[in-house]
Amino acid sequence: MAKPLVGVIGVTQPKEKEALIAFEVGKLIGAMGLAMVCGGLGGVMEEASRGCDQAGGTIIGILPSGRKEDANTYVTYVIPTNMGHSRNNLIAHAADILVAVGIGYGTLSEIAIALKLGKVVLSYHSWDIKGVKRCNNLREIEDNLRHFFSQSSQS
Amino acid sequence: MAKPLVGVIGVTQPKEKEALIAFEVGKLIGAMGLAMVCGGLGGVMEEASRGCDQAGGTIIGILPSGRKEDANTYVTYVIPTNMGHSRNNLIAHAADILVAVGIGYGTLSEIAIALKLGKVVLSYHSWDIKGVKRCNNLREIEDNLRHFFSQSSQS
Amino acid sequence: MAKPLVGVIGVTQPKEKEALIAFEVGKLIGAMGLAMVCGGLGGVMEEASRGCDQAGGTIIGILPSGRKEDANTYVTYVIPTNMGHSRNNLIAHAADILVAVGIGYGTLSEIAIALKLGKVVLSYHSWDIKGVKRCNNLREIEDNLRHFFSQSSQS
Amino acid sequence: MAKPLVGVIGVTQPKEKEALIAFEVGKLIGAMGLAMVCGGLGGVMEEASRGCDQAGGTIIGILPSGRKEDANTYVTYVIPTNMGHSRNNLIAHAADILVAVGIGYGTLSEIAIALKLGKVVLSYHSWDIKGVKRCNNLREIEDNLRHFFSQSSQS
Repeated sequence: MAKPLVGVIGVTQPKEKEALIAFEVGKLIGAMGLAMVCGGLGGVMEEASRGCDQAGGTIIGILPSGRKEDANTYVTYVIPTNMGHSRNNLIAHAADILVAVGIGYGTLSEIAIALKLGKVVLSYHSWDIKGVKRCNNLREIEDNLRHFFSQSSQS
Repeated sequence: MAKPLVGVIGVTQPKEKEALIAFEVGKLIGAMGLAMVCGGLGGVMEEASRGCDQAGGTIIGILPSGRKEDANTYVTYVIPTNMGHSRNNLIAHAADILVAVGIGYGTLSEIAIALKLGKVVLSYHSWDIKGVKRCNNLREIEDNLRHFFSQSSQS
Repeated sequence: MAKPLVGVIGVTQPKEKEALIAFEVGKLIGAMGLAMVCGGLGGVMEEASRGCDQAGGTIIGILPSGRKEDANTYVTYVIPTNMGHSRNNLIAHAADILVAVGIGYGTLSEIAIALKLGKVVLSYHSWDIKGVKRCNNLREIEDNLRHFFSQSSQS
Repeated sequence: MAKPLVGVIGVTQPKEKEALIAFEVGKLIGAMGLAMVCGGLGGVMEEASRGCDQAGGTIIGILPSGRKEDANTYVTYVIPTNMGHSRNNLIAHAADILVAVGIGYGTLSEIAIALKLGKVVLSYHSWDIKGVKRCNNLREIEDNLRHFFSQSSQS
């Protein structure tokens, strides 16, 4: 049985609050025994990876470039695509549920595809697009993740 | 010298007003001696293709599927990608300027990538995202297109 | 009705004989009233584009990079993908029949996908893979192209 | 530090000998403490996944479709791409070294891209392309894998 993946998407230059939340979300994912998928680079991606790594979780990083060495140091398995922004699409497909942190156009493209695919997108300080679930703090993100996976495990 | 391409992006099930504008935008592109690029399918894509074809313009249709026969009948050159939503990314890259018509998540992903690439996105009845230029009628779209290409030809 | 596309694929550093054939194949495509699709860069791609352009044909160039200015100067419509080697796949899908000139791994990947899709691949000084049709001169390429399109127009 | 990935590529309908080797290669990868990446479907991919799973290894499956449920049951992390044959390119990029089993055009496209990227490709009953290392049995595959990773760990 394949393991579920939580997508963490967000900007490379987050504000302090966003970086902190990203780290905590990563830690939460690891603590819940889940794995995460992200874009593998810096900022929100790196903070979430660091948190997840600290909690013993597995991190899959899907890079826009073709060079494994571009991944942040916390990524467990690197998928270098050399496909530029099209790799955003892969993250939206690979994630079972997504957490978006911060405002950027790359993040928006990932949210758009994820919503197109009917996935749950939790949004913290990110785009307020029709269809996303806004979360104002870590607690709300945690509640949504736990709710999502308790439902999945019953189906 | 490569010919410029105007991207026309939008929903497969447009409202009547959106379908009409899409057709007129296509006709305008053809009349201006320009070529257009779109997703090659129905709705906004087909109406714009029909208009462009009627005005003698060339239409490049980049399909999500791998089957050329999925293109609408007005497309001049079909690029079947078999890459699903990742083909949205190709349209954002191929277009020099984009016109978005209607509200859909696929369209949103194209707008996001186009803005990420620093392109001008004209938005009619479409997503009101930071960075797009809202146009309320065909005249405003035409003014923006003419302004864009008069600048390009001087550079 | 969409216009058919002849794919011309090959190395960026062809031998003299290969460059000459590529140019002649491009000219032939234009003279036959057909359009061509290629990778849009130098070498075989540029020679074929130059020939096709000289004969009044249309050339679609699908680039690995995201920059339109990377295309050779004969390309009519540039599709910059920023998808690296994955753009090879697009050429194999877009072409109705392909002509391969010269030996390179990128060319091999295009041949492989084209054969996977059941397409005819004419090979001049290129990979001698099971499934390709070897051609020893321009005449054999021309005969195969004419035969292919006379059949298509009857179906 | 990211963990290395061994790519196992091959046909969906292998001969008995090929299926057996695929299973043994998977088991070997797991026993060596390595992870593997593959196309996630049946045949060689499934046999290798099963072997790797049995030896306690991790398997990343990169699917051509967009549906996680298309993966074989041994895949640990599923990356559904909805990019068709372009996903072959991702496997060639993600793998540090590849083992090819059996003759198919999809496999050939993966070999071509891997060689283009300068990677080592071990070939068992597969394409005899310039650049691959032919292996006639499991022992030769094992020797090559051990040699490759002993060198990597020193660099």
